[in-house]
Amino acid sequence: MTVHVTMLGDGQMGLVLADLLVSQGAAVRMWCPSPDAVEPLRTTRMSPTRLPDFRLPDAVEVTSDVDHLLDGTDLVVNAIPTQYIRAVWTRIARPGLVPCPVVTVAKGIEATTLLLPTEIMQQVIVDRSGSPWPMCALSGPTIAREMAARLPATAVAASEDGAVARLVQDAFNVSWFRVYTHDDLTGVEIAGAAKNVIAIAAGLVDGLGVGYNAKSALLARGLAEIVRLGVELGARRETFFGIAGVGDLATTCFCPHGRNRTCGEQLGRGEHLDDILASTASVVEGVPTTRSLCDLAARHDVEMPIARAVHGILFEGLDPRDAISGLMEREAKQEQVG
Amino acid sequence: MTVHVTMLGDGQMGLVLADLLVSQGAAVRMWCPSPDAVEPLRTTRMSPTRLPDFRLPDAVEVTSDVDHLLDGTDLVVNAIPTQYIRAVWTRIARPGLVPCPVVTVAKGIEATTLLLPTEIMQQVIVDRSGSPWPMCALSGPTIAREMAARLPATAVAASEDGAVARLVQDAFNVSWFRVYTHDDLTGVEIAGAAKNVIAIAAGLVDGLGVGYNAKSALLARGLAEIVRLGVELGARRETFFGIAGVGDLATTCFCPHGRNRTCGEQLGRGEHLDDILASTASVVEGVPTTRSLCDLAARHDVEMPIARAVHGILFEGLDPRDAISGLMEREAKQEQVG
Repeated sequence: MTVHVTMLGDGQMGLVLADLLVSQGAAVRMWCPSPDAVEPLRTTRMSPTRLPDFRLPDAVEVTSDVDHLLDGTDLVVNAIPTQYIRAVWTRIARPGLVPCPVVTVAKGIEATTLLLPTEIMQQVIVDRSGSPWPMCALSGPTIAREMAARLPATAVAASEDGAVARLVQDAFNVSWFRVYTHDDLTGVEIAGAAKNVIAIAAGLVDGLGVGYNAKSALLARGLAEIVRLGVELGARRETFFGIAGVGDLATTCFCPHGRNRTCGEQLGRGEHLDDILASTASVVEGVPTTRSLCDLAARHDVEMPIARAVHGILFEGLDPRDAISGLMEREAKQEQVG
Repeated sequence: MTVHVTMLGDGQMGLVLADLLVSQGAAVRMWCPSPDAVEPLRTTRMSPTRLPDFRLPDAVEVTSDVDHLLDGTDLVVNAIPTQYIRAVWTRIARPGLVPCPVVTVAKGIEATTLLLPTEIMQQVIVDRSGSPWPMCALSGPTIAREMAARLPATAVAASEDGAVARLVQDAFNVSWFRVYTHDDLTGVEIAGAAKNVIAIAAGLVDGLGVGYNAKSALLARGLAEIVRLGVELGARRETFFGIAGVGDLATTCFCPHGRNRTCGEQLGRGEHLDDILASTASVVEGVPTTRSLCDLAARHDVEMPIARAVHGILFEGLDPRDAISGLMEREAKQEQVG
């Protein structure tokens, strides 16, 4: 039986996952947030500014219509960046819609509300359609450019509902993309959001040219501060040491193609944030997430010195070199983890 | 008061740390295992096959004499690779020597005995001098080439004796090399030994060109299997998530200069192990450690599929591509960590 999937978003992950799903025999409808994007993508099947050398299969239906978007849909994939989820779902969700499983690949924390992607969607859906929908997060070391080339990758499908996790696993699992079920949705979403902030710091290290030893220490310290926050929010510690935790953190900090790491590297070389963001067609989720993450840490009284340093550089004019030196020279005589 | 340090070994880490100690005002005596190495190093102060562009300070005394090697020594640094520690210490240790703190930077597990570096030294010392000496391990993301350039790095000084850990911290702590005390010696040594094995697997991924996503998943899975073994051996779980655990693992898996990763990359490209080992002046600790690690895991009934796969490639003629595919396709439906 053909699975009908609605893919929200035409960014890197939306494109790559639409291709994967079609290869599995799914019928995929891709929704573009911008009506202007529909015709070029529909006719050329290319998105050169986002994913060079990638071709979207002809079988993928491309639309920006919302009226019948979820008609006949078995699974919705949210590939809308975190800060736009509320606006998009406010257009989509409405009374009378049949509840349908939703899986998100967005990784961030909403400004002001400090909600995670599945929490934002659930809030809007309950507000507008009256009942909750099954939620899932698909997360792991999944740099889109490598997935576009079908290089091997892994991810977890995390849901509080085991049946939904298995449904997502079945939909996405292919020989080159192994999907494991997971039950710690909060942990997986916190790990996914926070790693983008640490990756900006890792990029700063690259931009300053201070080496792999420093970047690896930063990865370990970054992981420790993510764990502190996650555990405080009710997540399980071991989630952060799995593929959606340290695995995703590693690829985001080391893969040269990652957008958050690249943004950090440009900052480290002295470029200005506004210029960096203006020069990319993709959303750098880590930038707004840095603010939300620091707010969330403050609310729960959790110390996150690396996130704070990134916040200082992004929004308070802190010099990257001073920030990295400051992190190196913190007066912790005895190592503390988690 | 001048600290007198005896540095055992003239490899990469021995050279780099001798330089660091001299910069701190220590008096350093470097012992070369090979008498033939003494005169070239003493006169040229260079070791081009091991560390290009590095110059050993004139103040470092270079010797291969063992008779009065530890006379007046406050601290011994063991930079002898694991498989040679027993032979070297059998020459050095003797009745009547005054007990002296020893810190090791070797990372491995001795063949057959399956002992860790400090355990090997302690066994020889007790056998030959009659009483135990204070032991410490210095470990972290410390690729020698970066340290030679004085790029910032961090490490832990791990000892069951807090005073010894602080002594080592005081000796090595400089502005560009931050040393933290730690009390889980077993955990730090297991982490240091096992990461070299995972790094060979990471190099295989590089040699096969399968990308950062796969390598990062492997890092997470590798960390999980190291934790399983470490906890079984009485180490603390959180040790593996600190700088000497995941921090060292990350730099070893990602820094292009690491010897173990490089060995794996060459294997992945189809080169033969004997040729690879013959072509380097440095010891690739991960190769013998793979055998010991698998033996240790078997003895404690701990599953270490990545270490097993590396063993298969190194010693049983397993094809790297088949090994990596095998790891990707393991039938774990639900992610398990630690």
